Amino acid sequence: MHVLKNISTLYTCCMEGPQDSIHPIENAAIVWSEGAFDWVGKESELPEKYQSAQAVDAKGHIVIPGLIDCHTHLCFGGWRPDEFEMRIRGESYLNIAKAGGGILSTVKSTREASFEELYEKSASLLRNIIQLGVTTIECKSGYGLTLQDEIKQLKVYKKLQENFTVDLIPTFLGAHTIPSEFKDNRKGYIDLIVHEMIPYVAHQNLAQFCDIFVEESAFSIDEARTILNAAMEHGLEPKLHADQLSDGGGAELAAEVGARSADHLEQVSDEGLKRMAERNVTGVTLPIASLYTQQPYLNCKRLVDAGVDVAVATDFNPGSAPSFNMHLAMMLTCNHGRLTPAETLKAATIYSAKAVAMEKKIGSIEPGKSADFVIINTPDLNFWMYHFGGSKIDRVYAKGVRISE
Amino acid sequence: MHVLKNISTLYTCCMEGPQDSIHPIENAAIVWSEGAFDWVGKESELPEKYQSAQAVDAKGHIVIPGLIDCHTHLCFGGWRPDEFEMRIRGESYLNIAKAGGGILSTVKSTREASFEELYEKSASLLRNIIQLGVTTIECKSGYGLTLQDEIKQLKVYKKLQENFTVDLIPTFLGAHTIPSEFKDNRKGYIDLIVHEMIPYVAHQNLAQFCDIFVEESAFSIDEARTILNAAMEHGLEPKLHADQLSDGGGAELAAEVGARSADHLEQVSDEGLKRMAERNVTGVTLPIASLYTQQPYLNCKRLVDAGVDVAVATDFNPGSAPSFNMHLAMMLTCNHGRLTPAETLKAATIYSAKAVAMEKKIGSIEPGKSADFVIINTPDLNFWMYHFGGSKIDRVYAKGVRISE
Repeated sequence: MHVLKNISTLYTCCMEGPQDSIHPIENAAIVWSEGAFDWVGKESELPEKYQSAQAVDAKGHIVIPGLIDCHTHLCFGGWRPDEFEMRIRGESYLNIAKAGGGILSTVKSTREASFEELYEKSASLLRNIIQLGVTTIECKSGYGLTLQDEIKQLKVYKKLQENFTVDLIPTFLGAHTIPSEFKDNRKGYIDLIVHEMIPYVAHQNLAQFCDIFVEESAFSIDEARTILNAAMEHGLEPKLHADQLSDGGGAELAAEVGARSADHLEQVSDEGLKRMAERNVTGVTLPIASLYTQQPYLNCKRLVDAGVDVAVATDFNPGSAPSFNMHLAMMLTCNHGRLTPAETLKAATIYSAKAVAMEKKIGSIEPGKSADFVIINTPDLNFWMYHFGGSKIDRVYAKGVRISE
Repeated sequence: MHVLKNISTLYTCCMEGPQDSIHPIENAAIVWSEGAFDWVGKESELPEKYQSAQAVDAKGHIVIPGLIDCHTHLCFGGWRPDEFEMRIRGESYLNIAKAGGGILSTVKSTREASFEELYEKSASLLRNIIQLGVTTIECKSGYGLTLQDEIKQLKVYKKLQENFTVDLIPTFLGAHTIPSEFKDNRKGYIDLIVHEMIPYVAHQNLAQFCDIFVEESAFSIDEARTILNAAMEHGLEPKLHADQLSDGGGAELAAEVGARSADHLEQVSDEGLKRMAERNVTGVTLPIASLYTQQPYLNCKRLVDAGVDVAVATDFNPGSAPSFNMHLAMMLTCNHGRLTPAETLKAATIYSAKAVAMEKKIGSIEPGKSADFVIINTPDLNFWMYHFGGSKIDRVYAKGVRISE
């Protein structure tokens, strides 16, 4: 049993209340054992029975729940720094894709990479991600686009889960784009997803969610409905990449199928937001993708005002969001997304947990939840968001174990 | 004598050529002694006489010149995280200033702080800044706005220069805003600057430059002309905060007085750029200020196309740019400023040196120049700009001495 003392402010981030309710406790202490929190409160009120627990000194820093990156494409072959320069020179994301770049170029590299190569690369990235305070990471497939290569990615996540203390939440994204060998046979690829990939992935328990990229250049609303319905029949919960480059009705479909989350949403309609709020679909903002594709940023205040819970994630991938820095995503959510630091912290913790259906186990510092937390060397939350210098992460714990260097 | 070997690519960043000429050398080595570079070239061509120099291993990483942050307000009392949240909630920078926040609130804190408090705070910040690869930093006064308090800030910089290996370039910015005690007597404050502050600062050799904030809420073009002419008479070279919130003719004035740089420039006119190019005034982009004030970003490509050399800096200050992270400033210059990684590196090195009149001594890796350089754990420059994760800085050297942890 351990007790963390000398916490200036503990931001518990419990679910109750609106987007800006993060339930801070000053001069707090937290007790944990066997990977879960036992007690949370003011240090002056620490019960007698925990006085003998092994003490850890927070050094007067703040403590927040472990950050949850609820949207990443962690496992991929190659990188695409050349496209970064092409976009700066004015080439559009769609034009780069048409010229053989974009997602399909990463598909090629991922197919060519061995399982071991992909595992080592993802593990190396994950070690760096952990240093930045992330204790749960959602990870999508979608760079294989054959049964075998989609499974290869998902098995990388499975092996990472065996070897790392942090939680990985695997998502099947076979419907990322149409692979080139099916470019004249869209229906053939959709059949492959529906009749082979989804049943296999679900049966082998390789993914918890099924995601799809709904966009003019990827899948239509009708195609998405077909795929997501098949996924649900096999027990995979739906998620959508929706309304990123244009308002394609993705938010409305997310509500219709009861998706766990709709992500991106830069171009979402008011009607789409209304329906998301009615069905309690979490909206995931991905401001790093807006930054790197020079698209407008999502005004998250609009979502909050519409009654949609907002989560924030990095969208880490080698093309449109080549940064896994959750602090950058959070700072952009403040500056460009117009959420306050408190609203942003809730987005990166309990609402991000909700976006991956883990809100009962993680995302807040409460008795019974997994002992995932981050100690940050900053006077308060506002200051951490505002003063973006080097990393101020002091220590990171997952399941009660220190996992940072 | 030392020799750095095993450099994958050395980006020398010599002045010659346009904005994107950074003169890379693959498989390079560099030799230095007594704080200055002796030799730069391919490792395979290292002359016999340097073979016995003490070897340092770059571990196959890239090497760039020490970064030069040519526009900061390093020394200040207090912080303003509350205004960060106010701006997110929609308050304008000007309204916050009118409500007693903004620059004048930092003036109050800076006047109240002792020399020792300001020194310790600035020194602590500088130690963190160095870790991010900065070896030269321009530092402005402008939060005192009395003779005594302006001197207090400038003497902090003088003492920092005595105790740190990096170069500090002090700039007098008494004309930052009109202090409240002169709000009904603008002329009285301008007289104080012209007849007392400038002569004293110049005579005591406390600053190299005189800067001024030309803006509707600060100083007019005519007032700026008066102040900068007085500064030049006393040997201080002019700089301007110009055309940030509106096109106020600041760029044209910069050209008229032959300023060393014009900074911000978000709203600069084509005519202003044309005149800056004619007079070789460096344009300094400050994208972190655009980020935190939710203003449009400067399209730096427009400056390059107009023939203006572009430098990049953080504008580090407690209000509009509370980040000293040059890598963030550079990444934003790529993504939002539309400069390529090569153009951006030149902006952060030799052109930034030019913005502080140090281009003969620093800013590039050439024999005779100060041995300021940074070893970065990344495959190439493009990748460093593109993959913004945690810091990839491996080691930082100033005047031939390792200054990073």
